[in-house]
Amino acid sequence: MTKNTFASDNYAGVHPEIMEALQRANQGHAASYGADGFTDRAVKKFREYFGETAEVFFVYNGTGANVLGLQAQTHSFHSVLCSELAHINVDESTAPEKFTGCKLIPVPTQNGKIYPDQLEARVIRLDDQHHPQAKVISISQTTEYATVYTVEEVKALSAVAKKYNLYLHMDGSRLANAAASLNTDFASFTRDAGVDVLSFGGTKNGMMFGEAVIFFKPELAGYFKFIRKQGMQLHSKMRFISAQFEALLSNDLWKRSAIHSNKMAKLLEQELKKISSVKITQSVDANGIFAIMPPAIIPELQQEHFFYIWNEKTSEVRLMCSFDTTEEDVRSFSEKLRSLTAR
Amino acid sequence: MTKNTFASDNYAGVHPEIMEALQRANQGHAASYGADGFTDRAVKKFREYFGETAEVFFVYNGTGANVLGLQAQTHSFHSVLCSELAHINVDESTAPEKFTGCKLIPVPTQNGKIYPDQLEARVIRLDDQHHPQAKVISISQTTEYATVYTVEEVKALSAVAKKYNLYLHMDGSRLANAAASLNTDFASFTRDAGVDVLSFGGTKNGMMFGEAVIFFKPELAGYFKFIRKQGMQLHSKMRFISAQFEALLSNDLWKRSAIHSNKMAKLLEQELKKISSVKITQSVDANGIFAIMPPAIIPELQQEHFFYIWNEKTSEVRLMCSFDTTEEDVRSFSEKLRSLTAR
Amino acid sequence: MTKNTFASDNYAGVHPEIMEALQRANQGHAASYGADGFTDRAVKKFREYFGETAEVFFVYNGTGANVLGLQAQTHSFHSVLCSELAHINVDESTAPEKFTGCKLIPVPTQNGKIYPDQLEARVIRLDDQHHPQAKVISISQTTEYATVYTVEEVKALSAVAKKYNLYLHMDGSRLANAAASLNTDFASFTRDAGVDVLSFGGTKNGMMFGEAVIFFKPELAGYFKFIRKQGMQLHSKMRFISAQFEALLSNDLWKRSAIHSNKMAKLLEQELKKISSVKITQSVDANGIFAIMPPAIIPELQQEHFFYIWNEKTSEVRLMCSFDTTEEDVRSFSEKLRSLTAR
Amino acid sequence: MTKNTFASDNYAGVHPEIMEALQRANQGHAASYGADGFTDRAVKKFREYFGETAEVFFVYNGTGANVLGLQAQTHSFHSVLCSELAHINVDESTAPEKFTGCKLIPVPTQNGKIYPDQLEARVIRLDDQHHPQAKVISISQTTEYATVYTVEEVKALSAVAKKYNLYLHMDGSRLANAAASLNTDFASFTRDAGVDVLSFGGTKNGMMFGEAVIFFKPELAGYFKFIRKQGMQLHSKMRFISAQFEALLSNDLWKRSAIHSNKMAKLLEQELKKISSVKITQSVDANGIFAIMPPAIIPELQQEHFFYIWNEKTSEVRLMCSFDTTEEDVRSFSEKLRSLTAR
Repeated sequence: MTKNTFASDNYAGVHPEIMEALQRANQGHAASYGADGFTDRAVKKFREYFGETAEVFFVYNGTGANVLGLQAQTHSFHSVLCSELAHINVDESTAPEKFTGCKLIPVPTQNGKIYPDQLEARVIRLDDQHHPQAKVISISQTTEYATVYTVEEVKALSAVAKKYNLYLHMDGSRLANAAASLNTDFASFTRDAGVDVLSFGGTKNGMMFGEAVIFFKPELAGYFKFIRKQGMQLHSKMRFISAQFEALLSNDLWKRSAIHSNKMAKLLEQELKKISSVKITQSVDANGIFAIMPPAIIPELQQEHFFYIWNEKTSEVRLMCSFDTTEEDVRSFSEKLRSLTAR
Repeated sequence: MTKNTFASDNYAGVHPEIMEALQRANQGHAASYGADGFTDRAVKKFREYFGETAEVFFVYNGTGANVLGLQAQTHSFHSVLCSELAHINVDESTAPEKFTGCKLIPVPTQNGKIYPDQLEARVIRLDDQHHPQAKVISISQTTEYATVYTVEEVKALSAVAKKYNLYLHMDGSRLANAAASLNTDFASFTRDAGVDVLSFGGTKNGMMFGEAVIFFKPELAGYFKFIRKQGMQLHSKMRFISAQFEALLSNDLWKRSAIHSNKMAKLLEQELKKISSVKITQSVDANGIFAIMPPAIIPELQQEHFFYIWNEKTSEVRLMCSFDTTEEDVRSFSEKLRSLTAR
Repeated sequence: MTKNTFASDNYAGVHPEIMEALQRANQGHAASYGADGFTDRAVKKFREYFGETAEVFFVYNGTGANVLGLQAQTHSFHSVLCSELAHINVDESTAPEKFTGCKLIPVPTQNGKIYPDQLEARVIRLDDQHHPQAKVISISQTTEYATVYTVEEVKALSAVAKKYNLYLHMDGSRLANAAASLNTDFASFTRDAGVDVLSFGGTKNGMMFGEAVIFFKPELAGYFKFIRKQGMQLHSKMRFISAQFEALLSNDLWKRSAIHSNKMAKLLEQELKKISSVKITQSVDANGIFAIMPPAIIPELQQEHFFYIWNEKTSEVRLMCSFDTTEEDVRSFSEKLRSLTAR
Repeated sequence: MTKNTFASDNYAGVHPEIMEALQRANQGHAASYGADGFTDRAVKKFREYFGETAEVFFVYNGTGANVLGLQAQTHSFHSVLCSELAHINVDESTAPEKFTGCKLIPVPTQNGKIYPDQLEARVIRLDDQHHPQAKVISISQTTEYATVYTVEEVKALSAVAKKYNLYLHMDGSRLANAAASLNTDFASFTRDAGVDVLSFGGTKNGMMFGEAVIFFKPELAGYFKFIRKQGMQLHSKMRFISAQFEALLSNDLWKRSAIHSNKMAKLLEQELKKISSVKITQSVDANGIFAIMPPAIIPELQQEHFFYIWNEKTSEVRLMCSFDTTEEDVRSFSEKLRSLTAR
């Protein structure tokens, strides 16, 4: 692939600063499974952002972070409320069901977000042995529509969680983009807004592999080391995840990358808005754009900078920007699109 | 950690040639989840060793390779026969049980290996609905005692498997060391000896992360892509596993590294044999040595080059060599040991 | 409880003819786990209705019949499409998810039934490893709204199943009531209409305990004896389930009971229709009536003949008739209701 | 089957007093799922034996009682220590593994019992994330060899459990026979001896179906109603289990039946001892006898009163007595055996 794509932030490679960190970490021997200095330092970095009591565990990927994070919050007779579009609901095979035993309750959504009144209507039959017992509200930040919950929106969901003795889980595979979008620190819209368990994404923000599961209620983390090992998500040469996270959280790398990819999405939005046959369907809050465009032009356009069709029926496409998206990528793509629509 | 250890081959870092391959792979965008050229080439490399019909899937770690490989071979009412010391039996939490539902039947072992007559005695009550139904024989090559099954030994186990309609699974987290020890190609003691499913280790032979699951019966692989995704072992930026495997299987890197680490173990064996208070307990077939030594000296010796105590009661220790173990490491360790035992 | 209720057909006891069969079966010893003559005869009875190739297994309860029947049809990465109101979706805890690993895809319903076009829209992303793979359509006959699928409706769903290589599963906890309603034999709307796996209910039609799982594709039944035992649904003193089924399927007992309970529901419907403040909400096809009535009168009415509120918000109640519901029960209930609404 | 067998106490039918109780319970309607007076009374009966704080739940069968009882005590990364011959280890398919996720650690046994020193040697690597974490000691009372733990033996195991923060579980499918053998009340060798969770068998002591799970630590029972429902072991017409237990625990029925079957085993033992070619292999503590006899005579002897061969290799057979075994059964069997061995 010679050109950057708008396919997904996991089409992008590894950020150069992270690659350097991997090189630096590759000196001599280090204790395995996390008993190494890199891991200590990376956890320390996380605690600078999330506080001293945050419990931090590294895993391989987002599926692992989400599923095992949910497992730590549930018994198998519980249910998890989430958007019908949630990654855990439609893009992680049946990993959540198989590993946790729980049912996922899909909540309809227009913009990727779910709202308190929707949840209130679905937290039913509590204490009824016949019915899956609601225990977790899971939201994605950014959402699958690349929209971003405001701090107030998260707090409102947390209030529902507290009211019914549920946990609030956040799938933050693109958490950095959300923080950049909200122009705030991580804690304000996670820990301080009532999130109990957080999947903190690394791979989609320039890492080679690795995600973190962060617990704000230490009691939820008590058994997590066993859950992680059993869940096949414990890396032996852990220093190579930890060193990446240390780099990501140092020198504002996470922020620089997120601001950049968000900015590229905004730029792309501006360009698309100039094209009358293209209709942007969602608020461009972070690093993704959803747009309806004429189906006939899509195949040729995909040659230029590949991207995915989100909805075949409506001809809605998804365009994702990443840390390495350039203004030139945006321009060449927009121009091609303009020329195709002008034919 | 300034010095190399004899703790485990996963205390070692990443082989320089593999680190270079990772650098080279980090150019521009690549399709995710394995639909990239790196993955095509890596699979091709594997097929040079294992034949065109081998089905090859990359996963994150050995637990994933073993557990999901077993899942592909079993229904949940099956049992898996393995050595009582098998990694899957004692070092992977209860991942095998939780994911497959199967029972592991532990077979006693003196040298890490299991034998046909032991299995014949345990394949019982077939078709009896009340009893776990034997379906897989799982062996580790090299074994947990760093011994190596001969080709004939593998074939004899395969004969038992065929007799009772079982599969033969091989946990090859150190397969390269076994091949180097047997001085033969991979296929001769796996596919050609009757192995049905193989975990092919990368991490312990100089990779940063990544293992392969190889199926020699294509029908067993039919659903594996779903099992892998559900099993949380599908990497998004797959090229970074694939590029490592391509490098490992090119220019005999796997072999050079394995020969070296095996050689270092032999050298260490020679040195230890000179020390009368040290007793080597297992045949040194590959890159590990098991030895009983005076307990009093162990703590100070561990300062020099860290290693693990295998059995507290007998004061048996395990010394693992890796691709980066040097003759100097062996000498300095041996001298320290000699001086401590001489006191 | 001195009076019959309209709560559920499992509030009713055991039909006298079945109780007699249990007495008769209690003579001397019988081989356990189904290797007895009672079980042979009961299976034979089922085959009179469903054909010689039907494979029949007895289990304890409806949850067991449904969940284990689904397990026989699925891998853990599959999904099951069912009505949002399906018993398996809302009234069996998370047993389906925990045991099968599968996701249940809820389909909206107005009358308890689901329709082909709804399913077509939901059988998506086939062969996409990230997405739960649709494998089973599960319908309840009678439905949770006590409505009955016509033969043609079942066939239309079977056509969708065949088109996408899915199985068609029927939860027939009240199958006898459906057969009586359709005035046809069992096979015509199950096996002959394309059903692959059937839960055949006994408990709700006058048995003390026991349900049957019936496979019309023998290959689906191949492992079921292991699934049943593992699923904790294999009864040791099996003759006491079998003898009940033999009695139920003899002398048209199932039919007499079903016709009677359906008739009582019709009679009750007639009475309710005379009361203007009561609104019947669903077609009364079988032995249940759903009706909206003034909330204020419900508590006192429940004293008379207990029943459940189906929907608190709309004040909709469910009234179930059983084999022992009498005309007097219907009349006394209706009169009480009339007098309460007249106040 | 015209004659009583020595095959198993589940070849026997239903005790007449229990059949009468079932008849009496079959009057009118009763609330389902245990919200009925029969269940209240049966639980009360249990509390007369086990104390007011005992939490009692009824399930269908022994597999359900054991597996769900274990689930209540464990996380999926735990292990359960039990005799290698334990029913949960060899006769319940892989139900324990599939449902709990846990590993069962088999402990060698000569007489069906396990001992503290054996357990001490196996409770290893606590807090090590890689290793299944020991959490439950599970024993069978009576054992699979029909031997009976003394109160002191149970207390000694409980001491090990307490030392390592484990639970002590007892599979009491033949608990009544154990109590009769020990000539003591139930509580003295269960609750008072340190048992935490007890499976209390009904089926093998003359019930048609039904077992109880009894928790002596109320905190373990907190979620059990959900576990039971999810575990497919919640009966709708619960009164028909409860009424049986009420009868079993009334008028010393459990004790009369157990004393009788134990006595028949003793009588049979006396007879067998007179035959020189028969060797009794285990202490006859309760209602079962294990004996080696000439293999050639077994087929003809099985015609008389069927029984199972326990070990084909040693020609060891198992002879179980039940509540309905008669002195005549014992005599006719012994005479036949004597005449066959005399040939």
